[in-house]
Amino acid sequence: MSLDTGTLTRELCVRQDDADPLAGFATEFELPTGVIYLDGNSLGAKPRMAAARAHAVVEDEWGTGLIRSWNDADWFSAPGRLGDLLSPLIGGGAGETVVTDTTSLNLFKALAAALRIQGGKDPARRVIVSERDNCPTDLYIAQGMVEFLDRGYELRVVEDLGAPGTWDSVLTEDVAVVMLSHVNYRTGAMWDLAGVTGRVHQAGGLVLWDLAHSAGAVPVDLTAADADFAVGCTYKYLNGGPGSPAFIWVSRRHQDTFWQPLSGWWGHARPFAMEDTYEPATGIGRFLCGTQPVVSLALVECGLEIARRADMTAVRRKSLALSDLFLQLVEQRCAGHPLTLVTPREHDRRGSHVSFRHPHGFAVMAALIERGVIGDYREPEVLRFGLTPLYLSHVEVWDAVEALRDILDTGAWDQPRFRERGTVT
Amino acid sequence: MSLDTGTLTRELCVRQDDADPLAGFATEFELPTGVIYLDGNSLGAKPRMAAARAHAVVEDEWGTGLIRSWNDADWFSAPGRLGDLLSPLIGGGAGETVVTDTTSLNLFKALAAALRIQGGKDPARRVIVSERDNCPTDLYIAQGMVEFLDRGYELRVVEDLGAPGTWDSVLTEDVAVVMLSHVNYRTGAMWDLAGVTGRVHQAGGLVLWDLAHSAGAVPVDLTAADADFAVGCTYKYLNGGPGSPAFIWVSRRHQDTFWQPLSGWWGHARPFAMEDTYEPATGIGRFLCGTQPVVSLALVECGLEIARRADMTAVRRKSLALSDLFLQLVEQRCAGHPLTLVTPREHDRRGSHVSFRHPHGFAVMAALIERGVIGDYREPEVLRFGLTPLYLSHVEVWDAVEALRDILDTGAWDQPRFRERGTVT
Repeated sequence: MSLDTGTLTRELCVRQDDADPLAGFATEFELPTGVIYLDGNSLGAKPRMAAARAHAVVEDEWGTGLIRSWNDADWFSAPGRLGDLLSPLIGGGAGETVVTDTTSLNLFKALAAALRIQGGKDPARRVIVSERDNCPTDLYIAQGMVEFLDRGYELRVVEDLGAPGTWDSVLTEDVAVVMLSHVNYRTGAMWDLAGVTGRVHQAGGLVLWDLAHSAGAVPVDLTAADADFAVGCTYKYLNGGPGSPAFIWVSRRHQDTFWQPLSGWWGHARPFAMEDTYEPATGIGRFLCGTQPVVSLALVECGLEIARRADMTAVRRKSLALSDLFLQLVEQRCAGHPLTLVTPREHDRRGSHVSFRHPHGFAVMAALIERGVIGDYREPEVLRFGLTPLYLSHVEVWDAVEALRDILDTGAWDQPRFRERGTVT
Repeated sequence: MSLDTGTLTRELCVRQDDADPLAGFATEFELPTGVIYLDGNSLGAKPRMAAARAHAVVEDEWGTGLIRSWNDADWFSAPGRLGDLLSPLIGGGAGETVVTDTTSLNLFKALAAALRIQGGKDPARRVIVSERDNCPTDLYIAQGMVEFLDRGYELRVVEDLGAPGTWDSVLTEDVAVVMLSHVNYRTGAMWDLAGVTGRVHQAGGLVLWDLAHSAGAVPVDLTAADADFAVGCTYKYLNGGPGSPAFIWVSRRHQDTFWQPLSGWWGHARPFAMEDTYEPATGIGRFLCGTQPVVSLALVECGLEIARRADMTAVRRKSLALSDLFLQLVEQRCAGHPLTLVTPREHDRRGSHVSFRHPHGFAVMAALIERGVIGDYREPEVLRFGLTPLYLSHVEVWDAVEALRDILDTGAWDQPRFRERGTVT
């Protein structure tokens, strides 16, 4: 809900927390005291059960079970089992998702598949369309593929796909696949997944969605959208742990139509027959490649186990309430400071994080982090704040904005130690 | 040393253990009681320190440090830091190795690099040579690449590269790269790494070595061999944990000469500048791709920390002593049973595991495992026994062969429950 900006008080936030149907989920996570965590869009918080799961997989499955755990602890089926747990969160069915490798690599597999499918129907379709503001690694992967194929494929990076009339001019007859982030990593802007998919299909193209900032954060229904391919990560809103393996979803109508080139043993039809010729497994299994990092993979289950119990409609409602609260508080209580909202105000165009530009964004974020209010920074000048409904309260949003206000009012950010840039922020 | 087969007794094994300079390393690992573990060539044992490391990375780095751990716990530099720890074990220098992704994926990167380097010099060199008995996933990856490139590249699988005169006929002017496993996954046969590398170089080819069954098991000197590319895994003899990330080594003379196609953000020259165009990092960093599984990656350090303290000459000496003992005991005490040695008898052609064929190999291995003697099985009919010098004793080898003898003498393997095949053995 949108709040009347005249009435915002900390007491009101307390009352909203009291009435929050998701409030109980916060106890499923462990966050350090003194921290308000607004970076679950970069690395999700640790589920309480993760410690026990890590102990079990290291001590019991590895230490005691040893090689026998491939069967006894069912390591071999983990990518599919976790994929089936995750799939409903993105509107997918069983057997349509696997948790494996990294988002970048899964993007490579899906792009390769899309190009091959199109090549089989119309070899003139050799263009991958994306937008300048897409997540850089997605563009890099497409660049690497086009350059490696070296036979007339092209990545066409559009400046602003949202500008009026752009779609019509972009969807030419040479377009094979459109590759987009559903929610933009920087701005938090969200595409109409079904609308874009339908539009691209009508023009003969396929769509590859990057759901890194969507899965577990906003409602996604790939089946209803009649989508083609989707990839995403499990370490943001799905709380799978640092760098936990990513996921790939492929529509059943595409699964058995091609051979993706990262064709390792785990994607073979008979992986233990040790045959010398690759034959892809039927179904989503052919998107697997090499041996997966079992410990990191096992931890993904803890976050999914929580997410699957949360009603996504309630999650979305709270996400919007928190981001409304946050942006209204910033505009009200930090008025007069040079903050510019980057994220769309319209609910149906907003994901689950809010970004503001500030000419000294890096130093302001460094000062905030020192006070325990952890958001992050993205070039250029963007302060990024993730609103994670499962473990964030309205009062924390209030307190975070108060910390920001104080830092801006007192100029506390203007110190050399906050201007010094590390490798990551 | 080779033992006089007339004198083999359990007491002799005890005396050999007493004199073993590596005996102390066994206490660095934790193995379940009642188990003799002969499968460290498939999944290495758990280092004692792994539990504490797992706890620290999950509880402190993820749980408390959260996103700050990218800097504070130095997650970002982990692939290079672990690579520098690993590199001396394969005769590599600092800045030549990274621990990342899977062996299959690293093979893809190295193959792509090799093809590109050759293509820049002589476009007619489009053939990848390998052998039928190479690890299947290596062949699958090469098949996937050739098929994806779809412009005249070829995987030429040779039946037996070791047969007299074969090398001369194989190394034709269209060969771009020879891709071999240094130690064969099934037979334990070992190539002369420097000899083959020199021979292939002389014929204008490059060599890509798969060191999955070599690293930490046998002496490897990539620098002395003037090698080009090598990949391998950390979860076998390096005891990194189930599915722990793999490694890739690239000679400095090749590092900056190409753009490998799995070009994700972690391999970018300025990964946090969020630029929209890929520019590869200089050096080995460009072989990185997407976000790594931090928990599994962190555990790799435990195994490397032990391996780097072990003298590789002593490791090799004990490995050969154990495998000599094992094969002599089997031939002496299991004589009369249809066991055929698959592994070369010559020391300089043997890795660190020993394989025997038996017409009922699967059931025999299942019966052994039920008695706590854990080896593994590989098609066709091959019983595979890994001899890991850091945590295996001579007495355990004696006891393992006694269990095998008893199972064969009594026919205990001939039961329905041992014939039933699971997904992995």
